[in-house]
Amino acid sequence: MADKERIARLKQVQKIVSKLPFQTLLIEHATDIFYLTGLTLSKGMLLIDNRKSNLIVDGRYYEMATKKSPCPVTLLKKDALKDQTGLGFCQEHTSYARFLELKKISKKPTPIANPIDALRQIKDASELKKLKKAAILGSQGFRFVRKNIKQGITESQLALELEIFWKKRGIEDISFSPIVAFGENSAIPHHHPGSRRLKPGDTVLIDLGVKWQGYCSDMTRTFFFGKPPQKMREIYSIVLQAQENALKRCRAGASIETIERAAKETIERAGYTLPHGLGHGIGLDIHEQPFITQRAKNTRLKRGMVITIEPGIYLPKIGGVRIEDSLIIESQGHAILTHVSKKLDYVKL
Amino acid sequence: MADKERIARLKQVQKIVSKLPFQTLLIEHATDIFYLTGLTLSKGMLLIDNRKSNLIVDGRYYEMATKKSPCPVTLLKKDALKDQTGLGFCQEHTSYARFLELKKISKKPTPIANPIDALRQIKDASELKKLKKAAILGSQGFRFVRKNIKQGITESQLALELEIFWKKRGIEDISFSPIVAFGENSAIPHHHPGSRRLKPGDTVLIDLGVKWQGYCSDMTRTFFFGKPPQKMREIYSIVLQAQENALKRCRAGASIETIERAAKETIERAGYTLPHGLGHGIGLDIHEQPFITQRAKNTRLKRGMVITIEPGIYLPKIGGVRIEDSLIIESQGHAILTHVSKKLDYVKL
Repeated sequence: MADKERIARLKQVQKIVSKLPFQTLLIEHATDIFYLTGLTLSKGMLLIDNRKSNLIVDGRYYEMATKKSPCPVTLLKKDALKDQTGLGFCQEHTSYARFLELKKISKKPTPIANPIDALRQIKDASELKKLKKAAILGSQGFRFVRKNIKQGITESQLALELEIFWKKRGIEDISFSPIVAFGENSAIPHHHPGSRRLKPGDTVLIDLGVKWQGYCSDMTRTFFFGKPPQKMREIYSIVLQAQENALKRCRAGASIETIERAAKETIERAGYTLPHGLGHGIGLDIHEQPFITQRAKNTRLKRGMVITIEPGIYLPKIGGVRIEDSLIIESQGHAILTHVSKKLDYVKL
Repeated sequence: MADKERIARLKQVQKIVSKLPFQTLLIEHATDIFYLTGLTLSKGMLLIDNRKSNLIVDGRYYEMATKKSPCPVTLLKKDALKDQTGLGFCQEHTSYARFLELKKISKKPTPIANPIDALRQIKDASELKKLKKAAILGSQGFRFVRKNIKQGITESQLALELEIFWKKRGIEDISFSPIVAFGENSAIPHHHPGSRRLKPGDTVLIDLGVKWQGYCSDMTRTFFFGKPPQKMREIYSIVLQAQENALKRCRAGASIETIERAAKETIERAGYTLPHGLGHGIGLDIHEQPFITQRAKNTRLKRGMVITIEPGIYLPKIGGVRIEDSLIIESQGHAILTHVSKKLDYVKL
């Protein structure tokens, strides 16, 4: 696969470069190079002008790259950038130290906000296929946890069992260290699994994801070990309502601000607060554009974006609830990728 | 522990800053913040001048930081850097985009080569303890592989079994994805484990490491599944000789160039080449300063550095041998951290 899509992506960048105020764009960020060429390099330079793309790699990668790159490959030499007049570089992924180097070896390096981010936001068919597969593996992992959870297990034991479950099914990697939080720990949004043992009455919050052919999944479910107390039932239903109020607005053309406000107001009207962003794009990175936060005010969702919607309420020292789905934005609505029920659920003891 | 050591480290940086051409050093690199404060933050600003240190964090981390930070903590506000005249920043870890932000919010940001790297090269007693423990766990992992390897297993199955072995022993993470390479794959220095199955006559190259309380281990051994052919015996003995020739020069004051040349010449005199660096520092990063390569020409080893020495010879489509130990540099020599024999070893079939 892929060569056709990679070549189309490179051509899109060539078109973008033709409108930029310099001749050649230098891309050195490994994830962007992977996106455009399919190659995993710890180091490499992709040079793109309005007509052509060229990948420069060192001796370690040269043979492999000449076989697999969708564009011509050149072996790295000391003065590789010497003749580049008008070189643009991505300012988010270039260190100030690298900028000083570029200033020495090229004539006029110009910083630019990374134009690849905008392309990466819109997923093509081959990317959606991988994101769906990653989401299925994520959902299977959650069901494994739900089925195998038992009194006395520690958070970190459960996290390990989950990782083993996935790795035996051939995943290349997890997309982030799973959050497994019992009881009062579920009130800490980014809790690291520790030695806390599961006991009756605990809230259980699981936030997890895997990578499949480079693409990430991300989901969260909260359930209870034994019948939940009234307070937790109450915040569960508010969080679920907040998520539904946001989800029903998720479609191409919708303003991110409106979506964020819908969830936030549901939570605030009930007397609670949402202490983190409502969601984010997922793709080759676990967190990428678009971010579903107030800062994204004037941006609108587009067809082919894949995002998460993950409201939460956290009661310090008591417990928290977060519910997170991943979804594809479509022209008339959206398609949920996460395949696990959101009905209030508890383990009968 | 640690508060005493952290405070000493912060004081060292304060002393360094007093000699720099600006008033305050801004540190935002997560690993450096961990080194100096013991806190794991996805985002934070450590401001150090010649008299004091101050950690600025957002709401997510504020409560935890006020309890655990060895220096005063301030809650992040929009204009946190507004009154900073003469702000220095580490040019390796600051993106050009962040530099543009700093230019807006502070009066005069000045780039500087990261002064924390030099401190981090020299490990104190508490760091050596963690590096030793990480190396023991690494060595145990290798022995597990050596004992459990069997015909027909795939590289990726063996890599997974190794990870499970470690995780059950409580490691927080691996320091890098282990390299498990069978047969001709051992000729690829950075091979990713795949579906290749072990068969009689194969070379087996295993490069592995774990993290213990943030500190990394790193080691490589090559052995054979069945009696090795003469050619592999020959390169094994050359690589081992190259490593010994480098190791016997490893002590405080020794020039890195001399050490690198000793290994390289041993390999080249035998008619082969060393296609990668001879070694690198290890600590909180799996690859850190000092790098044992030709580029480090004029630098000398110092007491308390922890480095790897890892020569290798690779015969394309046949197989490769790499032997890697981690070691502490001492005033009169060095202490090897890797606890696995280097005698030529094969599995009797």
